[in-house]
Amino acid sequence: MEEASIKEFAADFDPQPFHLDQSAARSSIFKGLAASGWHTAAIAMRLLVSGGLPLANGIIGLGGDITWPRPTRPGDILRVESEIVDITPSRSKPNQAVIAVRSTTLNQNDEPVYVLNAKLLVFKRP
Amino acid sequence: MEEASIKEFAADFDPQPFHLDQSAARSSIFKGLAASGWHTAAIAMRLLVSGGLPLANGIIGLGGDITWPRPTRPGDILRVESEIVDITPSRSKPNQAVIAVRSTTLNQNDEPVYVLNAKLLVFKRP
Repeated sequence: MEEASIKEFAADFDPQPFHLDQSAARSSIFKGLAASGWHTAAIAMRLLVSGGLPLANGIIGLGGDITWPRPTRPGDILRVESEIVDITPSRSKPNQAVIAVRSTTLNQNDEPVYVLNAKLLVFKRP
Repeated sequence: MEEASIKEFAADFDPQPFHLDQSAARSSIFKGLAASGWHTAAIAMRLLVSGGLPLANGIIGLGGDITWPRPTRPGDILRVESEIVDITPSRSKPNQAVIAVRSTTLNQNDEPVYVLNAKLLVFKRP
């Protein structure tokens, strides 16, 4: 995470002082510049799409629950670990299922910064 | 939502064919170009920050659950409605509480495209 991209995303989508300005961030609850949680979520999605979660028909999210256990900081290097925890075949559509995937985004100190428990739509091989 | 910004966000964070290309999207489950759900989530955050949810210390999310009941499409005009559904004072920090906020993002046909049930950290007036 580069400081410039943290500020750029925040200016577009989450223009709050603690995501935009170092000195304002220091006096906030974050005690320093922090990425928008939605920026972290978007980067986690990019990591999933670009190989972190290889699903043949793509990653089609229905919903899920999210937590941000700690802030993402300038200089952090993020990676994602995913686990398919459940598969529920559709009752009405025999070629579809909903899977539950737990994806944890970790920083360079192996600390979780974002946990997504997602429900995804998947398809059987033709 | 402009088609160009849908494709730009997708290229940065969610580069899947149904978010990037009209003809690929037509043959997908979305039956046409759809915004990344994370793009919709980011825009909802911008709507909340820019007046949709006036909290004195800012919108500080701990986590929540999300659903995308239907896709966001090029040309859609989004607005957000929020309701504070619960307030839980901190037991250890007398000036803090966690609030539960339900925010529904609707398109121009009053159809929900994104529902966020968030837990937010708030502070008492000094």
